[in-house]
Parts: sequence; C-alpha cells; structure tokens
Amino acid sequence: MTRYRTLSPPDLRVYLGAHDALGARLGGPHEGWAVREVSDGNLNHVFIVEGPAGAVCCKQSLPHVRVDPDWKMPLTRTDFEARYMRRVAPHVGHLMPALLHFDPDLHLIVMESLHHHHVLRGMLGEATALAGFSARIGEYVAQTAFFTSWRGRPFEQSMADCAAFAGNTTLTRITVDLVLTDPYRAACARNHWMTPELDATVAELQTDAALHASVSHWQERFLGAPQALLHGDLHTGSIMLHGDDVRVIDGEFALMGPIGFDAGLYVGNLLLHAAARRDHATWMADEIETFWRSFTHEYRALWETNPTSGDVGALLDAAGRHQAQAQELAMVMRDLAGFAGMEMIRRTIGYAQVSDYALCSDRTGEKEARLRALTLGRMLITRGRRIETINALLETIEEPGGF
Amino acid sequence: MTRYRTLSPPDLRVYLGAHDALGARLGGPHEGWAVREVSDGNLNHVFIVEGPAGAVCCKQSLPHVRVDPDWKMPLTRTDFEARYMRRVAPHVGHLMPALLHFDPDLHLIVMESLHHHHVLRGMLGEATALAGFSARIGEYVAQTAFFTSWRGRPFEQSMADCAAFAGNTTLTRITVDLVLTDPYRAACARNHWMTPELDATVAELQTDAALHASVSHWQERFLGAPQALLHGDLHTGSIMLHGDDVRVIDGEFALMGPIGFDAGLYVGNLLLHAAARRDHATWMADEIETFWRSFTHEYRALWETNPTSGDVGALLDAAGRHQAQAQELAMVMRDLAGFAGMEMIRRTIGYAQVSDYALCSDRTGEKEARLRALTLGRMLITRGRRIETINALLETIEEPGGF
Repeated sequence: MTRYRTLSPPDLRVYLGAHDALGARLGGPHEGWAVREVSDGNLNHVFIVEGPAGAVCCKQSLPHVRVDPDWKMPLTRTDFEARYMRRVAPHVGHLMPALLHFDPDLHLIVMESLHHHHVLRGMLGEATALAGFSARIGEYVAQTAFFTSWRGRPFEQSMADCAAFAGNTTLTRITVDLVLTDPYRAACARNHWMTPELDATVAELQTDAALHASVSHWQERFLGAPQALLHGDLHTGSIMLHGDDVRVIDGEFALMGPIGFDAGLYVGNLLLHAAARRDHATWMADEIETFWRSFTHEYRALWETNPTSGDVGALLDAAGRHQAQAQELAMVMRDLAGFAGMEMIRRTIGYAQVSDYALCSDRTGEKEARLRALTLGRMLITRGRRIETINALLETIEEPGGF
Repeated sequence: MTRYRTLSPPDLRVYLGAHDALGARLGGPHEGWAVREVSDGNLNHVFIVEGPAGAVCCKQSLPHVRVDPDWKMPLTRTDFEARYMRRVAPHVGHLMPALLHFDPDLHLIVMESLHHHHVLRGMLGEATALAGFSARIGEYVAQTAFFTSWRGRPFEQSMADCAAFAGNTTLTRITVDLVLTDPYRAACARNHWMTPELDATVAELQTDAALHASVSHWQERFLGAPQALLHGDLHTGSIMLHGDDVRVIDGEFALMGPIGFDAGLYVGNLLLHAAARRDHATWMADEIETFWRSFTHEYRALWETNPTSGDVGALLDAAGRHQAQAQELAMVMRDLAGFAGMEMIRRTIGYAQVSDYALCSDRTGEKEARLRALTLGRMLITRGRRIETINALLETIEEPGGF
C-alpha cells in the first residue's frame, strides 16, 4: 500500500523506463514515449504507451470507480485480473493480450498493447467485425472452462482457485447486485430507463413474483455452482478484434462459477445488439450458433483427449463419458439461456447499460429495441431451465412476441 | 511447526497445568490428574484428562494416520476442526462439545469432555440409545446448513468459508478417494470384502457402467455444489449420546459442500446398522423419518425467520419462498439418497468399514447383511436423482429386493 500512487503519464514513463524488459520493448529514451489515456471501462485507468520500438498497455486500479469517485473500491481488482491472466494464459494465451508485468504494490498491469485492435461492441455497430468471430470466443470459453473444471484437473487445484478468487468479493458484489438483483427492485435508485415509455414494463419486471422465483434460481446458480474459473464479465466490450485476431480482455471479475455464466453474458450482449440493430439480427443469431458449435466441439474434444484428468468422471468409459458430456452441455445451455436473459434486462434498465441502443435511429426505434430486449430477457430467465439445445435457444430468440 | 511434538500423558498434564483456565477446570495440582487415551477414530490421538474438579478432552493431530504410520498426513487437520467448531458453535453450541482451547503450533484441541456420553454406533448395537435421537441431528444439520448457506448470510461470508476450508484438501482427498471413487475401481488395493461370498457382487459394482455414470454425478455434486459448511463425516461414530443429550464431534473433514452430503452420510449409517441388525430395521426407518421431519421443520423455520439474510432469494415473497423451500428440500433429499448409497457401498467393501457387521450372529448372517447393504446402496445411487420426498426414500428402503 505504501508505494501505491495513481500514476500520471510522466510517472508511467519513468516507471516503465526503470524496467529493462519493458523499456527495451518500447525502445529509446523514456522521455520520448507517447502516453495516451484510453480508459473505457467504468473502473480503471488505462494508458497506451508508445515508443519507437513498440507499445504496451498499462492498467491501474483506482481507489474508486473511475466514473464515480464517490464509489470507493479496493485496489486489489487488478491483482485478480493478473492472477486470472496467469491462470488461463497456458490454455488461451493466443486469445488474450500477453501479460508482461504486474506490480502488486501499484496494482498495475503492463500488457501487450492491442492498439491495432478495436472493441467488438463498436465494430458490431459499424458492421466492421469479420463475421464468425464467435468461433474464437467458443474456443476461449471451452479452453478456460475445461482446464479449470473438476473434470479437467485434480480437485486440489480447483480448491486452490476457489480460495484464490474467493477474495474478489468487491467485484463479485457488483455482479450480485447490478446483474442479479437490483433491476428487479423497485426501490433501487441505481436503475434508470426510458420514461415514460418503459415505465409499465419495468413496473411489471419489478413486481412479477414468478419472474423473481426464476431470478432467484439464477442467483443461486451463479454463487453455488463453481464449475470452472470464469472471466466473469465476458461482454462485447471485453473483446477486441483486428481482422480475424480475437482477444479477450478485462478479467478483473474472475471467480469460480458456472460455465454458462461466461457463455450467457456473451450471448446476451449479442442479443442486445440484435435488439438495437434489427438488420443485424440474423448475423447475431449466426454468431450465437457459431459460438455454441465451436464451444461444444472444443469442450468435447478436450474432454476426449483428457478423459481422466480430474476426479469427477474418472470412472467413466467412453459411452458414459459421452452421456456425461451431453448432460453437462445441456446444463451449460440452461445456464447460458438464463444468464443471457439476466444480462439483457440489467443492460437495459440497470446501472450500466449498453451503448448499442445509441445505434437506434430515433426514440421510437430505441423504445422498441429496449422493449424487445426486455421481452426476450424475461422469456430467457423464466424458460431457461428448459432450454437445453442450441435449437431450443434459437427458436426462443426467433419466437414472435419474443424477438 | 517448531513447537510441535506428539504429546505424551505427562507432557499433556504439564501443558494443561500451564493454562490457568484449563487448570482451574481440572482442579488441584496437575501431577494428580488421570490421563486416559481414548483414541477411537483412525486419525488422531485423543485423551481424557480428569482432575478433582472436572475433566477435559484433548485431541492432537499426528503426522500420520494413527492406525497406519506409513500413511503420512499433514498436522493441520485439527486446525480445520477447530475452525469448524468456532464457525458453527453460535448455532449448534448445545449439540457439540464446547471448544475450550486450540493450540495451532501443537495442533491440539482441548474441549469439553463427554466422558458420560457414549458413541451412538455402539449404543445402537446395544440398543441403549434413546429412540428419537435423530431429531437432534436434524436440528444440527438444519442450523449448520442454513446459517452457512447463500440464503442464510451475505455471499461474502460464504466466500470467506470457501477460502478458509478450501485448504482442507488432505481430508477432502480421503472423501474423494475412499467414499466417491475407490470402491468402484477393481484395481484398488485399499478395498477388501468377504470373499468368496461377495466376489460376484463386488465385480459387478466395479464393472457396471450405468452405476459408474451415477457415481460420477455424486462426485460432481460433492465437489461442485458448495451450498453450506458441512461437517463432512457425519456418521454414527461421530455422534455421542447421554440420555437425550446428543453431541456431534470430529469435524475435521469440514468443507463447503451440498447439504445432502451430511444428511446422506448420517442416513447411510443408520441404514448400515439396519442391514446388520434386521430387528432394528423399523427403528432405523423411524429414526430416518424423524431426522428428515426435524431437519425440514427446522430448516423452513429458520428460512421463514430470516427471509432476506442472504443474497440468494432476497427478492422472493412468501409464496415464492415456500416454492423455493420445496425445491431446495427436494434437492437435499436427492443428494441425501445418493450419498447414503455411496456411504453404504464404501463402508461395506472399501478401506474403512463399519463395525455394525460384527453384530451379525454368524458368517451367513453377515454375508446377507452386507449383500443387503450393497443392493440398497446401489439402488440409492442409481435412483437418487428421482428420490425427492421422505416417502419415496422410505419406499425404496422397504422395497422387496432392496431391504
């Protein structure tokens, strides 16, 4: 703590220059390096530093939410992000920026700069993302999930991760409140929505006891089913693209949880985009299908290649394994559906909403887009427990009255 | 570690005498105290120390399994037991011995002596246990489970316990291997059974792929569903009785897990006793029913009194809560049934078997008792996922060909 200070651009130059490997990567004397703030998420300072030889990206925790200095927050969140990157890099190193350096006193991550990449959410709006990017995200979820699951490694390693990430309570509390609870509470001042257009729909969401029973189920799944180490915030703003090069960033929400949570947040954000841009709806449905086929193909393949790496399922023969795979993938799909629904609701009426709605042509268009998202979100939350296949998901998405 | 040594009876007298509160509890000079070794479990040294004013019970970890010095084992297991006792004492203090003192260097627990109590397993054999003791165990499981669950407290506290008990891997490994895996492996040298009488049945258990698929499900439930802080080894040898005073001991296997695991081990051991003593079968069925009614009554009552103590379910109204209670109790019953079956198998052909079989009148009687246990155990393992009520459980137990 004593060494912690919020780094200014000149501080950062000096700091990087004092580390040989980082200095060499940038090249030349540190005085000449360009420092550009690119903070985009809600929480942290992010800088790109460029020198004659190359660039790095620096991410530092602030003692508060970046966009709300009154919302105090512990500095350890980059610690969890660095820990997450180290844990999953052996499996998905090519799908993340390389972690170059972590300073636990400054809570500073220095990583490969992705300054040629763009954030997926923006590229969807501009329709510049190369279709099929979701195959890479399917691989990412499969690789991170399988190798950190009870099936992919001895349980002692999973217990160690339970302990290592159990302390990430500040960010987990954000998920529990903002994603899983607040949007359904009438008295919560963090919610905001288009008024008066959405007033009646929001009132319904906040008083429907049957919906709340389903929400309660997803709350319990999130906390009570630590199947694998999750990214924890896998939305289209946490993914960067450059051509067919796909990278996942911002793992500070990492925790042990249900595999379908990462998958569901991703799918939920594709659906939010489709709600805002009707002309992209078919594309997004294709991406969802691509994601699922890629995820399931890869997950099964890893399981087949590592049939007895973990304690769970070590007794199974090939037929038993295939049956267990089918059951597990059905479970992931149920969770995916439910959490996708929760994400759609919270990103439409909760504290942190998606910018996709700014793509709507006018207020009427935006109102319709938001109502579409709320309708589909609610359907996914209440029916999720019965959605077990990609076809069932796609049918729900395309259902009249749904989407 | 430097202070650790295995305490001899004279060492123990000096140690206790040096602690005022403990010395006062025993009374008089320490030279006169009687020290009696009463080690009964497989793992630790246990002594009763008696003085003119009172008595205490001392439990110390050894660097190996007590009954097998070649099986090395870390000393921290009493640390987890002390931690467990501290965690659950506010809720079930009257159902446990009082923790008087814990020395983390010596890995020594000093607790209330239960020298007027007897171990339940022995009292069942002698039929000296007062019928209805299971009501207290139902309370014990309800209180410990509810207050350490996602519903009973903010998730941060549960995460802290996930971290605090995730390190108990040595004893969890024993459960994973001895309870959940080994008995189904033909090549495992730790298994032993009445031969040739059980050879064919054991061969079947170790080659039945459908059974192994169900076993795999219970493996995953054990590791992947940390609903509450468990005792982890709640069998009839971990319970002591004196009249209607019931105490649970030996919490060194504590971990976060599914509530039905504690319940299932308990019920499994009652069923093992019933298998060995047919004349006690009705009594045991009554105890199982008493346990379940007490557990469910208490669990619902705690939930009704603390409807929004936790994050999960905080949105529910009374009707939603009652529905969630019914769903959760059905889940606990499924797990109870499956884990009871796993316990019956492993205590009949695995490494650590129950002494109840010594109650059989002759070898033929013992063979029949063990076959009964294996048959019912297998039924509970394969059907457990469909057993959701106490009546369904009791019908399975009483089914011809089952019990």
